[in-house]
Amino acid sequence: MILQDRLSQIRKIVNKEIEKISKGTELYDAALHIIRSGGKRLRPFLAITTSELMGGSLEIALPAAVSLELLHNFTLIHDDIMDRDDFRHGVPTVHKMYGVPTAILSGDLLFAFVFKNIISSYADVLPPNRVSKIVEKLSEVSIQICEGAWMDMTMEGKKVVPEEIYLEMISKKTAALFEASTYCGAITATEDVKMVKNASSFGYLIGMAFQIVDDILGMVGDPKKTGKPVGSDLRNGKATIIVLHAYRNMSRKDALIVDRVFGKPSSEEDLREAVKIIERCGSISYAKEKAKFYIENAKAVLSEFDESPSRTILMELANFIHTRIY
Amino acid sequence: MILQDRLSQIRKIVNKEIEKISKGTELYDAALHIIRSGGKRLRPFLAITTSELMGGSLEIALPAAVSLELLHNFTLIHDDIMDRDDFRHGVPTVHKMYGVPTAILSGDLLFAFVFKNIISSYADVLPPNRVSKIVEKLSEVSIQICEGAWMDMTMEGKKVVPEEIYLEMISKKTAALFEASTYCGAITATEDVKMVKNASSFGYLIGMAFQIVDDILGMVGDPKKTGKPVGSDLRNGKATIIVLHAYRNMSRKDALIVDRVFGKPSSEEDLREAVKIIERCGSISYAKEKAKFYIENAKAVLSEFDESPSRTILMELANFIHTRIY
Repeated sequence: MILQDRLSQIRKIVNKEIEKISKGTELYDAALHIIRSGGKRLRPFLAITTSELMGGSLEIALPAAVSLELLHNFTLIHDDIMDRDDFRHGVPTVHKMYGVPTAILSGDLLFAFVFKNIISSYADVLPPNRVSKIVEKLSEVSIQICEGAWMDMTMEGKKVVPEEIYLEMISKKTAALFEASTYCGAITATEDVKMVKNASSFGYLIGMAFQIVDDILGMVGDPKKTGKPVGSDLRNGKATIIVLHAYRNMSRKDALIVDRVFGKPSSEEDLREAVKIIERCGSISYAKEKAKFYIENAKAVLSEFDESPSRTILMELANFIHTRIY
Repeated sequence: MILQDRLSQIRKIVNKEIEKISKGTELYDAALHIIRSGGKRLRPFLAITTSELMGGSLEIALPAAVSLELLHNFTLIHDDIMDRDDFRHGVPTVHKMYGVPTAILSGDLLFAFVFKNIISSYADVLPPNRVSKIVEKLSEVSIQICEGAWMDMTMEGKKVVPEEIYLEMISKKTAALFEASTYCGAITATEDVKMVKNASSFGYLIGMAFQIVDDILGMVGDPKKTGKPVGSDLRNGKATIIVLHAYRNMSRKDALIVDRVFGKPSSEEDLREAVKIIERCGSISYAKEKAKFYIENAKAVLSEFDESPSRTILMELANFIHTRIY
């Protein structure tokens, strides 16, 4: 498949670039631990392919792609501490391997490199106003991610949250960085306001779909693929679009059953029962419809660009994100 | 005293600017908690006064001053988590008040604003190459601070560390941000390479002195002023210039006594005995001499600038940092 080949190619190039920041100390090993252990490099892929779509290139978009991946990984390291997660990509998380203090510092270190890398790489390459725009976007998206992660945290265990609040939360926590990826990619290629705006919309829309798909997988994903039991988001008390929809629609009797597992340590049997109730409420189908809505809108935005190999592969990516749940 | 008046004036202006980032949520309250509870705003003072010294102004240096203070406070929030400190400025630390996850996020949030604030404030005010230089310096100093904090952590409990390593550690952990403060202040006023270089040196040198003075206060500071018992650094196992000098010079018998308290929970009586031994080794005098050396060099660098009210007040600051130990 073309998409997988291209993802793999970009992954190798980005990984090689990221390795260059290492100074070989334990602090740098901690900072690069999660990056070294896997990941699809979706955000670099988006930045680079969007740049190509608009007449740019892999070369010109690479520094932005690297910074986006560093930013993403900084949030993963800190998120894992906050969520007390022990594993990611099948390996122990940074704080599990190196302790919380080093994990905090190594995340901060990656965050610093996000900006250092942009200035060092683009100083004499891109017009200064474009470099500024990239720095501005990366700082803005960082603020959004913090706000989104905090919203996510405060929503934990809540059964009644307006869907707009959920959508705002995932737009900050997840979609904003997808949007920043296509935005930065576009900026490396063009100053055309409309093109940059469309690129941003495309990123935002697939980002929204990506998170909703993730929420679906966190509820009914194949444990062999997700590495988590069916209903794991339920056990963790995550107020996802699915849980919120289910609580709006289930009977009082069913709610009592779901309450027994929501945000509580619970057996896989009880979890499966609760997930069945949620499926009966139509909440999984509801979330799938939402994901489909975002993907279709994303593809509609993308179809405004002239046909090209980059457009085709971005369409493929949109389909790929969507089909993870089928 | 002119210095104190000016510090107080700058503090008020900087505090007011920083308040503008607040969105009123608990996350922002957590982020601003330490800033609101006190602090001298030394770094903003340095940036602003250095700018004035070179023909700039408070107005032009203010955004850089704000970013430097945000950066400083981001490191304080994360440091307090890492060191498990319960109090700062006489109030509970952020993680004590809001929990570790919110503290991590609120630090990250301030860090993001460091860069957002520079771009938003300077976009149409400073030439783009100078904005880039400020962003670059802020990202570089962030990297240094992470590396310095990590060195500090790994040196904990060690009795034998070469003094060069200690000096490298404090230069990254502390002096680098003082250097960045005078550098950024200078850049807001001039592109004269020599002037910027001298300004940086001045910042670096008083930063080194500041940390050594801090280490002296952590050993023999007045508990009423420091809020910590005599010898608290010793109890915490901090490998400061004083401890390292003492271990190089004390008898085996004395070392056994100091070993009993170094990095261990210990009574104030045992601590006082160990501190007496350290004083007898001449380690406090040694550190005072070092601090004096950096201050005198800082003043020599400063004296290369023409006389002006800004120069006078920076001289006063250098003296003030030094006289904290007398």
